[in-house]
Amino acid sequence: MQRRTFIKEAGITSVGLGVFGSLFSENRYTEAGLSVNGKRIESRIFELTKFGIDEKGRGYRVAYTKGDIEGRAWFMELMKKAGLDPTIDAAGNIIGKRKGKNSSLKPIGFGSHIDMVPDGGNYDGTLGSIAALEVIEILNENNVVTDHPLELIIFANEEGGTFGSKAMTEGLTKEGLQQKSQSGPTHAEGIRAIGGDPDNIQACMRSKGSFHAWVELHIEQGGILEKEKIQIGVVEGIVGIVHWEVTVEGFSNHAGATPMNLRQDALLAASKFVVAVNEVVTSVKGTQVGTVGKLAVQPGAYNVIPGKVVLGLELRDLSAEKIEMLFREIEKRATAIAAETKTKFSFSRQPNESKPALTDKKLQQVINTNAKALGFSTKFMQSGAGHDSQHMASIAPSAMIFIPSVGGISHSPKEFSTATDMNNGANVLLKTILSLDKG
Amino acid sequence: MQRRTFIKEAGITSVGLGVFGSLFSENRYTEAGLSVNGKRIESRIFELTKFGIDEKGRGYRVAYTKGDIEGRAWFMELMKKAGLDPTIDAAGNIIGKRKGKNSSLKPIGFGSHIDMVPDGGNYDGTLGSIAALEVIEILNENNVVTDHPLELIIFANEEGGTFGSKAMTEGLTKEGLQQKSQSGPTHAEGIRAIGGDPDNIQACMRSKGSFHAWVELHIEQGGILEKEKIQIGVVEGIVGIVHWEVTVEGFSNHAGATPMNLRQDALLAASKFVVAVNEVVTSVKGTQVGTVGKLAVQPGAYNVIPGKVVLGLELRDLSAEKIEMLFREIEKRATAIAAETKTKFSFSRQPNESKPALTDKKLQQVINTNAKALGFSTKFMQSGAGHDSQHMASIAPSAMIFIPSVGGISHSPKEFSTATDMNNGANVLLKTILSLDKG
Repeated sequence: MQRRTFIKEAGITSVGLGVFGSLFSENRYTEAGLSVNGKRIESRIFELTKFGIDEKGRGYRVAYTKGDIEGRAWFMELMKKAGLDPTIDAAGNIIGKRKGKNSSLKPIGFGSHIDMVPDGGNYDGTLGSIAALEVIEILNENNVVTDHPLELIIFANEEGGTFGSKAMTEGLTKEGLQQKSQSGPTHAEGIRAIGGDPDNIQACMRSKGSFHAWVELHIEQGGILEKEKIQIGVVEGIVGIVHWEVTVEGFSNHAGATPMNLRQDALLAASKFVVAVNEVVTSVKGTQVGTVGKLAVQPGAYNVIPGKVVLGLELRDLSAEKIEMLFREIEKRATAIAAETKTKFSFSRQPNESKPALTDKKLQQVINTNAKALGFSTKFMQSGAGHDSQHMASIAPSAMIFIPSVGGISHSPKEFSTATDMNNGANVLLKTILSLDKG
Repeated sequence: MQRRTFIKEAGITSVGLGVFGSLFSENRYTEAGLSVNGKRIESRIFELTKFGIDEKGRGYRVAYTKGDIEGRAWFMELMKKAGLDPTIDAAGNIIGKRKGKNSSLKPIGFGSHIDMVPDGGNYDGTLGSIAALEVIEILNENNVVTDHPLELIIFANEEGGTFGSKAMTEGLTKEGLQQKSQSGPTHAEGIRAIGGDPDNIQACMRSKGSFHAWVELHIEQGGILEKEKIQIGVVEGIVGIVHWEVTVEGFSNHAGATPMNLRQDALLAASKFVVAVNEVVTSVKGTQVGTVGKLAVQPGAYNVIPGKVVLGLELRDLSAEKIEMLFREIEKRATAIAAETKTKFSFSRQPNESKPALTDKKLQQVINTNAKALGFSTKFMQSGAGHDSQHMASIAPSAMIFIPSVGGISHSPKEFSTATDMNNGANVLLKTILSLDKG
């Protein structure tokens, strides 16, 4: 209890914490109070890599596969040992509850996901999941009971389109459930395979206001924190994403017999467009990104002037208005390129767009204050990647904590974060949960 | 004979010809002498389209197919009727000989090909073949016997890589014969199917100096003559062609989490390269062309920054030195783009390059003089497309006559040349053969 009393104070000032902190000499306590067991986090990250390896030795813990099912079983076993009594909701999300002192208070939720992209890395989602369990275990080991109930949530199939968190918040459609998942089965079949109940999918939905707060620790997946030597990223929001399929029509003709000035080269026009997208996106201040990630040329031969190009344009930003503004500018550039190259551009906006999701400003401050109190440098930043937290933000005050990704590499076996950074992030998560409990 | 006497004079001046021309009032004679039957040419062009139609109704007289074999049989039947007694050489080339008055003189060769690209047009090769036969028939009908023997040659498999003319001049390798042709069988199998003898392929070779001259009438396949309202193109040469496979290596990463300034986007670099190729090729005076006709992106998804692009670069010009100069300039631009985009370019020169082939300057003048004498506007120009004549140029003084292609379209069902232009071209061919006979 003394320790808990100490933690109550911990949120106030870092100076005060420094004084109290000196009372504890054990390794697991920082000056600021309770501290996670970084070695345990690291060893569990590597234990989890054993589940889901394909015939080529690559990570393949893709949602609904054998590796995913085995990894989930392993994780639930750890949850049981930590006294969480995990259950699986209708969407396949794993939920472990820990009672608080006041059962009338709303639960504080935290967690992430353990599924991965094909040939993915060992930290994306995994860190947030294992650190969330670590928070529970540290509370257990120190006999800390929070006022609020706690909920550790491991979302199902994040990489397939944040399926579990979408099911819990906005809900899934029957059509969506019947679509094929990345690993082969339909989502309905996959959800059943991991213990969910697709026929009763609405049962997993949580209403707006049903959580006191939601917090997710995650690797950055970009290179900003590493490049700027910042230890903790305070996520201001998760960007909106819009995709357009862009078709460029020129005229296919003989590459030998058609002089340069008589060409209507769809690839030349598309190339000017790719360059223009980059120019437009980088011409405005901010953290927006724009990508042409795919491009197909028809007919596609050395000696034929391309008649048609179909390419994929993606824009992401925290502001939906900025995405629209950038797109209008890109359209203008396309019109000019079309006139210059005697081609035609058409844009087909794709139905899968996701709206920007802002995190809670008060929660951002709680994270920032706690990180600073632990002596970490911080940066307010956006998440360019999608996360389960973007759905949770629609029903709860939500926040995300980022730690650096070495080389900014993600969705790759080269994905890596240091044990120190993981330990830092988990400590910020722990302190944030405790602050929110008292906030 | 009177008519022949007249023709003897015809090459001298167009003024003189005008005077003599008025002696003949029949439709088939122009003021300048003998004239082809344009209606017969036109009707035969359309008769030939009946051979080689695929299940979708598209032209498919691809070398070695049923359509090719049937079209060849139809053509040989016409040759027989014209007294040519056609034979098939070891490469499958159809050769029809017409005796001259002086058997010790070298033959004058003319002709083209009747095979087509898949879904191709009705004029490429066909016009030159049917017009060559027309020349024979007009001579027959007017009892004209040339001094030189004449050889009408229909080359086999032009569209598959000028196979027949290559076999006749530089020869084919055993390896080349064993490669698959466009329509499926190996070239050896295909040559056998059209009546050739691949086991004895050298038998078709003709030595240097074995022809007095070689002349080919062809559609331009580009849009220059139509655009400049020129009736006859005098071909100065057939361009050399060099292909490079260009690999651009960047770094594939998350399109959401990777800021614009930390990217190594292979497609952005490749796009700048495509624009640079166009700038370099159009920055120099001349008729050179440069094309990026194919481009493949890896991994190729909306939300992944392209890590690798492989593209095809083609340069064509009448001067091999100019091709090298342009390539050096393009390489320089690639080096700058690589530095700017943090990517790497590598170039693999492809083994299938073809050297520029110049036509004979005296023959160019004969064609130009005859075309002018017929009242046609002319332009000295290069052929951007490859032709059998490029191989014939290595063993004989060679020339090509071009007529306009409507819209500059070729290798397409939309390929079209007017009956008037075909008639003009065939008359220039006829007059050129007769001039060469006396030259």
